[in-house]
Amino acid sequence: MNAPEKIAQLIALTREPLPASAKGWIEGSRADLRVPVRDVRLTHGRAASFYDTSGPYTDPQAAIDVRRGLASVRGAWIGERGDTETYAGRQAHGLDDGGRPGALDAGRIDALRREAAGLQRPPRRARAGQNITQMHYARKGIVTPEMEYVALRENGRLEWTREFLGHAEREARRRGNPLGARLPQRVTPEFVRDEVAAGRAIIPANINHPEVEPMAIGRNSRVKINANIGNSAITSSIEEEVEKLVWAIRWGADTVMDLSTGKHIHTTRDWILRNSPVPIGTVPIYQALEKTGGIAEDLTWPIFRDTLIEQAEQGVDYFTIHAGLRLPFIHLTANRVTGIVSRGGSIMAKWCIAHHRESFLYTHFEEICEIMKAYDVAFSLGDGLRPGSAADANDEAQFAELRTLGELTQTAWRHDVQTMIEGPGHVPLHMIQANMDEQIKHCHGAPFYTLGPLVIDCSPGYDHIASAIGAAMIGWMGTAMLCYVTPKEHLGLPGRNDVKQGIIAYKIAAHAADVAKGHPAARARDDAISHARFEFRWEDQFNLGLDPDTARGFHDETLPKDTSKTAHFCSMCGPKFCSMKITQEVRDFAATHGLGEQEALRAGMDEKSAEFAARGGQFYVPVQSA
Amino acid sequence: MNAPEKIAQLIALTREPLPASAKGWIEGSRADLRVPVRDVRLTHGRAASFYDTSGPYTDPQAAIDVRRGLASVRGAWIGERGDTETYAGRQAHGLDDGGRPGALDAGRIDALRREAAGLQRPPRRARAGQNITQMHYARKGIVTPEMEYVALRENGRLEWTREFLGHAEREARRRGNPLGARLPQRVTPEFVRDEVAAGRAIIPANINHPEVEPMAIGRNSRVKINANIGNSAITSSIEEEVEKLVWAIRWGADTVMDLSTGKHIHTTRDWILRNSPVPIGTVPIYQALEKTGGIAEDLTWPIFRDTLIEQAEQGVDYFTIHAGLRLPFIHLTANRVTGIVSRGGSIMAKWCIAHHRESFLYTHFEEICEIMKAYDVAFSLGDGLRPGSAADANDEAQFAELRTLGELTQTAWRHDVQTMIEGPGHVPLHMIQANMDEQIKHCHGAPFYTLGPLVIDCSPGYDHIASAIGAAMIGWMGTAMLCYVTPKEHLGLPGRNDVKQGIIAYKIAAHAADVAKGHPAARARDDAISHARFEFRWEDQFNLGLDPDTARGFHDETLPKDTSKTAHFCSMCGPKFCSMKITQEVRDFAATHGLGEQEALRAGMDEKSAEFAARGGQFYVPVQSA
Repeated sequence: MNAPEKIAQLIALTREPLPASAKGWIEGSRADLRVPVRDVRLTHGRAASFYDTSGPYTDPQAAIDVRRGLASVRGAWIGERGDTETYAGRQAHGLDDGGRPGALDAGRIDALRREAAGLQRPPRRARAGQNITQMHYARKGIVTPEMEYVALRENGRLEWTREFLGHAEREARRRGNPLGARLPQRVTPEFVRDEVAAGRAIIPANINHPEVEPMAIGRNSRVKINANIGNSAITSSIEEEVEKLVWAIRWGADTVMDLSTGKHIHTTRDWILRNSPVPIGTVPIYQALEKTGGIAEDLTWPIFRDTLIEQAEQGVDYFTIHAGLRLPFIHLTANRVTGIVSRGGSIMAKWCIAHHRESFLYTHFEEICEIMKAYDVAFSLGDGLRPGSAADANDEAQFAELRTLGELTQTAWRHDVQTMIEGPGHVPLHMIQANMDEQIKHCHGAPFYTLGPLVIDCSPGYDHIASAIGAAMIGWMGTAMLCYVTPKEHLGLPGRNDVKQGIIAYKIAAHAADVAKGHPAARARDDAISHARFEFRWEDQFNLGLDPDTARGFHDETLPKDTSKTAHFCSMCGPKFCSMKITQEVRDFAATHGLGEQEALRAGMDEKSAEFAARGGQFYVPVQSA
Repeated sequence: MNAPEKIAQLIALTREPLPASAKGWIEGSRADLRVPVRDVRLTHGRAASFYDTSGPYTDPQAAIDVRRGLASVRGAWIGERGDTETYAGRQAHGLDDGGRPGALDAGRIDALRREAAGLQRPPRRARAGQNITQMHYARKGIVTPEMEYVALRENGRLEWTREFLGHAEREARRRGNPLGARLPQRVTPEFVRDEVAAGRAIIPANINHPEVEPMAIGRNSRVKINANIGNSAITSSIEEEVEKLVWAIRWGADTVMDLSTGKHIHTTRDWILRNSPVPIGTVPIYQALEKTGGIAEDLTWPIFRDTLIEQAEQGVDYFTIHAGLRLPFIHLTANRVTGIVSRGGSIMAKWCIAHHRESFLYTHFEEICEIMKAYDVAFSLGDGLRPGSAADANDEAQFAELRTLGELTQTAWRHDVQTMIEGPGHVPLHMIQANMDEQIKHCHGAPFYTLGPLVIDCSPGYDHIASAIGAAMIGWMGTAMLCYVTPKEHLGLPGRNDVKQGIIAYKIAAHAADVAKGHPAARARDDAISHARFEFRWEDQFNLGLDPDTARGFHDETLPKDTSKTAHFCSMCGPKFCSMKITQEVRDFAATHGLGEQEALRAGMDEKSAEFAARGGQFYVPVQSA
């Protein structure tokens, strides 16, 4: 079986919609602007509706051929603007797919290229003198279809949440504590435009990635999560990576970073981009290093520059660029317990030291901006000096780099290049707030994008949990996107199940942050599942959860399948001890006696008392003591 | 195979010490006072040492016969005090092991009793007029062996942590932010006495549980975790529950609650108590309800009182008593989304409503204190009105009960009965602090013992994660013990693996809280593993982690076993991209050139620059474009 066939087969496994779910659409102001949601049928006849990252894969109406890629969402919008042009693109090189000079298997590369032939598109770039970034349009006062799409998507179907309103005391609690975020009751396209213009939100959407369903990353939007995939030199294949992408967005990844480092890195990216409805991020220095055969000292600005163009032409939506790791900061890591733990950071540190020169990413930053804006690639300014242990958290190396990222943000914004800032790593609970404070102070409102942080160092195998704790905290404090950590962190390359475990942990963290901030759409999901829980609507409990399959499976492990789905208790407490069942009985009693619940409770229920008085009895039956 | 044989066989599976670990002992002031620790051999010749909850099971020297129970730890200390006496104990009843009157299988009960015969001890109680609680001794200025034991245990082997000291900047960060907790650099027996006297800490240690290894629960001690086990009417057996106990303490449960509700409840408790080195808590109302055949209205004070004595004689160390759920509070739950979610709370609410009378737990509270102090059973004042959903968090029902628990604490303290306060449930992130504030304000410094809280409602199957987030937060804020939640929460009865998953999630939360508070012994573990990580000591990374087995297994999944254990990279990034490897190379270069690291970095490394200049080369090899 060749690669495309294998990918098609793998993806077919995950094209089923989630249980009781159907793809719904929110119609925008033009026929080709409609925003997907996941509508969930509930057993009592009403429905819930969720933000949907899964793309066409969960839409049974969508015809998908991974050999051709997804249908275009934004192609017409980009074309209509008339400020871009297609062109021949750079010359492909054997090295694009890895391998040292002279050690290439040209036959294998040709075969791979042929398999990916249906994915090739002539690249598009800004016409000379034009700036085509979403930030540029926003600053000119233009509301793009992308911005309208984001507004509709952030709101979702707010109507369904109304059934949970109307209780004054609970509503006060729903408001949350936004800690400085400004979350409107209804997001308008103009609000999105204003956020993008101010740099408080980005819409990562390369003009060469028309398949993307636009989304926003910003403090005043829902908290997003990123999942990393990517083959390494050690294991995994193109097929697995494409399938991981589809799997990751099924469970809720808002963006995916392709961190591939091995061979076939260019072709893997073609497969991922053409089949991805979510923004794809990369760390271009990884591919640049492949081109030098892994020798950091041999990196040059021309190699790096060419790699940026290569990836921008393919459609990568955001680039992690470690331009804040400057030569004078490297010595600040000398007494660290874990030194430099960012791959990109360590590569650049090695280069800087070998040449004793300032990083070419820093010295060529304006030129990088010129490339970014020709394709509308967003910056994810990398934290090459993030702490790899609690011992190194919040040290001068980390914060010196962060301040530099703040400077670079202003440079990027002079070019209207969209920018977010990377942060954390390993940071104990009591030191998290300082990270957010420093970022807000020095980065001018640009979105913060943090890895975790892990709040302890000693939980290998469970770092998705240790980091979800920190992620929930920093998300509440104002981080716009949380980069997931899987159970394999520090140990090995995540497989399919690890990806899912990491995503669910981060959906929990992001949702906890949204609830704490008082996002108007967030709490409805909790209220809906809590009502279902109290009313013993088991199927609804499963289907309103973040992972219906696992919840249903756990329930079925200890209770027989059919009867228990309607049972008014679960196997945790059994029928006699079910507190919800007992509370329900009390309420039912009140209802059948025509009493309001409060009145019933206050009135005293003389009938029950009389029943009891008539009973009494002998409870103790002595037996032979052992 | 009969029950004892099956238990013995199951426990044999978990008697292996954890990898590279040996039971160590800290010697106290008398020969029979020695505190266990887990000493971990590291590959570079040094050692680490951890707080050890696993009891004799991980000590290859210990002869264990589950049919006879564990050896006594505290028997001599209790005896020497001369203020207690053995007595015949109450008459056993068939109902003690469940079943309605007239529906008992007397033969089965007799068989179970015979199997448990080797576990029976004549019960002990305070002599008339004597108060024998640890709080009473503390208030009289007496430092008991239990208090000394706790002091030694809280410290552990502090010496091993010294190797991580000495770096001024890092030390400032290690101090944490205790948020009002007072954590001494070295805990003295007098400090423990003072904490217990003031009610800020409890040492749950029933005089009928001499097998217990004393431990303390208090804001100024390490944060503890509790694991719930217990069969239900639906599934599981005595054998499984005893094995779950041993399994739970292996992974770090500081106390275990036996929440059994089905048949054989008395005999299950005999097996658990006699084989438990950790304090055991129960919710006596569960057993009392079994005695009424599950009819809440039929509960009476005499049945409940008798159950308290029954369990106190067996040796239960703390009782959850829902005495704060008063009749006038019940109507406050009428508009809740999830009503009353505490099992004990709903049972008492049903009783109060049926009779329209104040809870007998409240009206008989002084008599309950009399029983508690005769055995030194500690109160865990139950939160029958804890919120079961975000919608119900921090409402008047919850806080009215909490204030009542504060009143009851003062009543309990008048009897010198040790007391902690139960709290949370489902509480969004931004509402957690208010819980701690109210508890501190109204409960006079008594330890807080919280379930989670779960910060969202919609993660069935992953509620150990949703609640570990809240638990870490509230632990940092001052909660003394965290009651775990397993992945099966809301869905079914936890099995062996669920128990482990819940415990590890809560060890993460408790450790994160200790690190944030600046506990002097906590951070050493993180520092040790981070050093091991940077030095590629893979075995040490596994063995210093909370779950060496899982970490090792994950690592081995993607890398071949033997070579990779010494490899200076892992399968996440591979050799070329390993940031730690690159940082190490930079440091090695500095060392071989006789430079201090900082100097080397500052100096510029001209040699490397020269090497690079001599190389250069052709990187691009054009190939046929696809």
